[in-house]
Amino acid sequence: MSNQAALESWMATQLAAVERALNAWVSIDTTVDGTHQAPADLMAAMRYAVQGGGKRLRPLLVLAAARAAGAPDGAEAALRAACATELIHAYSLVHDDMPCMDNDVLRRGKPTVHVQFGEAVALLAGDALQALAFELLTPDPAVIGVAQQARLCRLLSRAAGCAGMAGGQAIDLASVGLHLTEAQLREMHRLKTGALLQASVMMGAACGSLAAPAEAALQTYGAAIGLAFQVVDDILDVTADSATLGKTAGKDAAADKPTYVSLMGLDAARAYAQDLHAQALAALADSGLSDVDALRALADLVVDRSS
Amino acid sequence: MSNQAALESWMATQLAAVERALNAWVSIDTTVDGTHQAPADLMAAMRYAVQGGGKRLRPLLVLAAARAAGAPDGAEAALRAACATELIHAYSLVHDDMPCMDNDVLRRGKPTVHVQFGEAVALLAGDALQALAFELLTPDPAVIGVAQQARLCRLLSRAAGCAGMAGGQAIDLASVGLHLTEAQLREMHRLKTGALLQASVMMGAACGSLAAPAEAALQTYGAAIGLAFQVVDDILDVTADSATLGKTAGKDAAADKPTYVSLMGLDAARAYAQDLHAQALAALADSGLSDVDALRALADLVVDRSS
Repeated sequence: MSNQAALESWMATQLAAVERALNAWVSIDTTVDGTHQAPADLMAAMRYAVQGGGKRLRPLLVLAAARAAGAPDGAEAALRAACATELIHAYSLVHDDMPCMDNDVLRRGKPTVHVQFGEAVALLAGDALQALAFELLTPDPAVIGVAQQARLCRLLSRAAGCAGMAGGQAIDLASVGLHLTEAQLREMHRLKTGALLQASVMMGAACGSLAAPAEAALQTYGAAIGLAFQVVDDILDVTADSATLGKTAGKDAAADKPTYVSLMGLDAARAYAQDLHAQALAALADSGLSDVDALRALADLVVDRSS
Repeated sequence: MSNQAALESWMATQLAAVERALNAWVSIDTTVDGTHQAPADLMAAMRYAVQGGGKRLRPLLVLAAARAAGAPDGAEAALRAACATELIHAYSLVHDDMPCMDNDVLRRGKPTVHVQFGEAVALLAGDALQALAFELLTPDPAVIGVAQQARLCRLLSRAAGCAGMAGGQAIDLASVGLHLTEAQLREMHRLKTGALLQASVMMGAACGSLAAPAEAALQTYGAAIGLAFQVVDDILDVTADSATLGKTAGKDAAADKPTYVSLMGLDAARAYAQDLHAQALAALADSGLSDVDALRALADLVVDRSS
């Protein structure tokens, strides 16, 4: 992709493919195997959780990394992996918003799932979205080869579990009102947000074929943007308003949660985000890969976003 | 296994292996890859949810089916599959007991996870147990071949998700106070309990090697004992006391939930359980497999249990 217009067109095409696929796969009618008979109200809550926006950053990372790793555009493995990361992300938001966690009533400008469907259905919808992510990754072996299926499940399960996202959320929960060191805060975010973002990059890479040094470079890229994402999140929590964010602004400060802003101040947090952005771009340059424009654009998006 | 003593010894050995493996794999120290750094309090809640009993019916079904399918005793794939089914079962109990679901305070004679650790940690522990099940199934390919990994993840994700366990729980939730037909009640239980029990059998079968007719016979066996399990559960809910059950007795009736007993009466429910038991044994006889003593014993256990 040699110019900005081609890149933007590629991004728009990928985003449309992800929306189409999510719409088809989180559905009572045309499901993963065509054999689903999920109850309608559960599926409605699952669809509600997945639809209606978000930046689809994780799916785009999967698809951009797949492209960098030489997977053909539109490869089924990459599209399934892309949607699987979004399902894990969506389930984590549903559970995170519940009264026993963050007790949030607004998400992407809409009532949260438990407000709309009740707590019990929200709990089950989150559980079912997690399972559905692994269903998506394990179709008939004619669709995705078994080695790729195994690798994708391996990456996603570890990123989602107790040493990944769920573990990070547990640390977050236990950290309210505590003073964390920068190392502790970084570890929390590495698990809570970084693990799934990094896994998205590596799952995309697994859909193509990479030499070890290029794979290591993408791992570094994924770690840098994973952390940058959270630093920017902390900045936006204090600088943006709820309407722009589509969720309740200022809630970290209100909940007395440690953040990069509370730890290092706003200016230093901004400089840190820029530094991580530079690290991500340097890793791409080091990778020796030629087709990294989309990954570079996503690094920009992570740091320059306003919501 | 030609006699009762050999069978009992085999069962005891398998049970001990499962307990040992669960203890090792749901652990802060020696985890799935030796690389876990899960937060200690989350892991404590996960261990609490997994330890302290239960019949380990699902792991035993995996191991008995693996044996029938010719997998060697002690095969790593079968042990991991066995533990993965138990982790899914354990997570479902944690979430099911939460205040927004069944709001139960007693499980296996101990305080439920949310009573012991708080609701937020219980929610996350359940989420992390589900992910851990898929982590267990996706070790280094030298440990389990990728085709087996893919097949096991495929079976487990579908049994756990919206067209399996989570879907069945959603129907259960929506059925309180309603009159269900027997077909509707059976469909609910086929998803809620039956899917994971049947998947346990098929995951065990996937650890060995079976001709199509034998596989179909085990599928029939799994469906029959899956349903029998729930019919007996409904019977025990009205006939046993809380101390024997290790959970609150009579809660289905109190919650005005449709059950086999409320639908067909106690005597007919007992006869139906016996009928399903006979179907399961007939399927084993039809399978043409020689080593089905353990599966037969588990069918007996499902129907004759007192808790």
